[in-house]
Amino acid sequence: MSHNILILPGDGIGPEIIGEAVKVLNALKAEGSLDMELQFAKLGGSAYDAEGSPYPESTQKLAKASDAILLGAVGGPQYDNLDRPLRPERGLLGIRSHLELFGNLRPAVLYKELANASSLKPEIVSGLDIMIVRELTGGIYFGQPRGIETNEDGERFGYNTLVYKESEIERIGRVAFDIAMKRDKRLCSVDKANVLEASELWREVMERIAKEYPEVELSHMYVDNAAMQLVMKPKQFDVMVTTNMFGDILSDQASMLTGSIGMLPSASLNASKQGLYEPSHGSAPDIAGQNIANPLATILSAAMMLRYSLDQGELADRIEAAVQTVLANGLRTADIYEEGTTKVGTAEMGDAVIAAL
Amino acid sequence: MSHNILILPGDGIGPEIIGEAVKVLNALKAEGSLDMELQFAKLGGSAYDAEGSPYPESTQKLAKASDAILLGAVGGPQYDNLDRPLRPERGLLGIRSHLELFGNLRPAVLYKELANASSLKPEIVSGLDIMIVRELTGGIYFGQPRGIETNEDGERFGYNTLVYKESEIERIGRVAFDIAMKRDKRLCSVDKANVLEASELWREVMERIAKEYPEVELSHMYVDNAAMQLVMKPKQFDVMVTTNMFGDILSDQASMLTGSIGMLPSASLNASKQGLYEPSHGSAPDIAGQNIANPLATILSAAMMLRYSLDQGELADRIEAAVQTVLANGLRTADIYEEGTTKVGTAEMGDAVIAAL
Ligand SMILES: CC(C)[C@H](C(=O)O)[C@@H](O)C(=O)O
Ligand SMILES: CC(C)[C@H](C(=O)O)[C@@H](O)C(=O)O
Repeated sequence: MSHNILILPGDGIGPEIIGEAVKVLNALKAEGSLDMELQFAKLGGSAYDAEGSPYPESTQKLAKASDAILLGAVGGPQYDNLDRPLRPERGLLGIRSHLELFGNLRPAVLYKELANASSLKPEIVSGLDIMIVRELTGGIYFGQPRGIETNEDGERFGYNTLVYKESEIERIGRVAFDIAMKRDKRLCSVDKANVLEASELWREVMERIAKEYPEVELSHMYVDNAAMQLVMKPKQFDVMVTTNMFGDILSDQASMLTGSIGMLPSASLNASKQGLYEPSHGSAPDIAGQNIANPLATILSAAMMLRYSLDQGELADRIEAAVQTVLANGLRTADIYEEGTTKVGTAEMGDAVIAAL
Repeated sequence: MSHNILILPGDGIGPEIIGEAVKVLNALKAEGSLDMELQFAKLGGSAYDAEGSPYPESTQKLAKASDAILLGAVGGPQYDNLDRPLRPERGLLGIRSHLELFGNLRPAVLYKELANASSLKPEIVSGLDIMIVRELTGGIYFGQPRGIETNEDGERFGYNTLVYKESEIERIGRVAFDIAMKRDKRLCSVDKANVLEASELWREVMERIAKEYPEVELSHMYVDNAAMQLVMKPKQFDVMVTTNMFGDILSDQASMLTGSIGMLPSASLNASKQGLYEPSHGSAPDIAGQNIANPLATILSAAMMLRYSLDQGELADRIEAAVQTVLANGLRTADIYEEGTTKVGTAEMGDAVIAAL
């Protein structure tokens, strides 16, 4: 069965880094190990430029019909003054919601070869390997009602609604427990149940699902404490699960603990395991088009795609091993370069991964 | 004019650390530099034990009538199974709301003598000195409607409302700009304006107030990026201003960057400069009653009280200088002890500060 993969290069460095991931996928196809068809479409600023919308209908159709989607990155300063509904990030929110990609997996892994890049002391972060499971299509991101209005006194107020249904909490909980079962069987659920009713329900549902996973040790932590513990003792965590908003904050914090966000992939899955895969870093418009961006997070996102949406775990392992080899061989893009290693460009890095496959 | 100060020892280590701060205040009174009367009341678990409420009426009356309040800390595992409205932290939320203490100041300062305590590399945090201004009586903490209900399909959902009126944003904005004027004249406002309407209005109002403070350089940052930048390059920040929820997370993260949360005070002020002062750390029930807790954050909270509510900036300076001296002399409580320094207990530390005054 041929896999139908949609490629969304996006904005900024997106096209360059996506190009390297596509090269890797094509190399696997050429050797006969991966049966796939690639399609291409636009998302974000480039989609707005071409079709007046950050998530145009043409892209929606292809996205819906695909088995999996690989995205570069979206955003750029030239779009900052657009009306909010037209901005690149609304394309991203749009596709997440449209395909109901509720399960966002964001690993924060420290590669031992890159240990120096962290702003934390080596003993605090060496061996760090956290998987953050973030709810991605609910919570305050999408809750209704919302808006900016004027009250009786003629004063404006801005408001949003944080809301979670039990079924929404259950399904993200199951994703997290399933992942915990494949890892160290420790899951930390992060909430603010001492203040928020939405968190109270969250905690209650997590407790209930835990009964289905007697082997997994479930703990709960308030979000403020989680932000502290991630700084103080990050290696205490294995899998973390949390809401859309808290996950946005904590997953970025956790990825920065590694000091090399250019290395970190992410996956956003729906109930049928269709997924959107993208690097955790942004579109870095300041270095776009210079062949200096790090393509490894995108290549590793392609590996996650093979594992989670296309059921090709062995090919995923091979890509991940190839990235390890390339790092062990001392190749580095500018963002992770240090003395004694060999600085290479975006395309050279992609070629090196293919050579190591 | 005699200042009317309310002392709330609270729970856990609260009574011990408050005891040392009271000793310092009494020493200033004894030498004739501070005209004050102390009153004592209960908050949190101890208030629940004595009067069945974490913020009983007796405390409410004394709080309302005071010029300033010094709090130890609240909370303990014996209260975990109480109904939520009876739990210690609800006492804290209650007094904040009752006195409209909307302006929460949480400094994150790295003492050079304690640089090793940080989990971050010394070059990343040395000289760190951030002031986080957190809105404390609005936003999702207090927004209505809220609750857990059942929908038409018989499914429960939990919800909360994030809401800010222009006037609420303005008043916390002015607090932050005023502080920025007394510091490095750089203010970073943290929001999530790319997703939340409440943040859109927040950003707009901050921009408007900025016109009244032409000397202050205002920047905006998304909360996820702020959490990353605090890990990667924390010294880029001088004053930060943000909402109740984001401030809860970021101020805890920032305080942990210093590695010595036992040193960090906080202030919560209302429009008439009445304030509640408390250490940033918690009630540490596991070490309560052992004379090993660090009283310095509470003593420094008393200094903030003198500065912000009692207009006694010089006395505040003296206390802060005394704490510096004690550190320079090598005295340390267990939480900040390292080889080559002298370990002392809670009471000895308080005595040493008084001796250095
Ligand atoms: C661009 C923005 C809307 C998005 C989010 O907040 O979800 C981003 O920060 C992310 O984490 O993917
Ligand atoms: C105890 C809790 C309700 C409180 C808060 O969330 O505000 C605490 O975390 C704080 O920051 O003072």
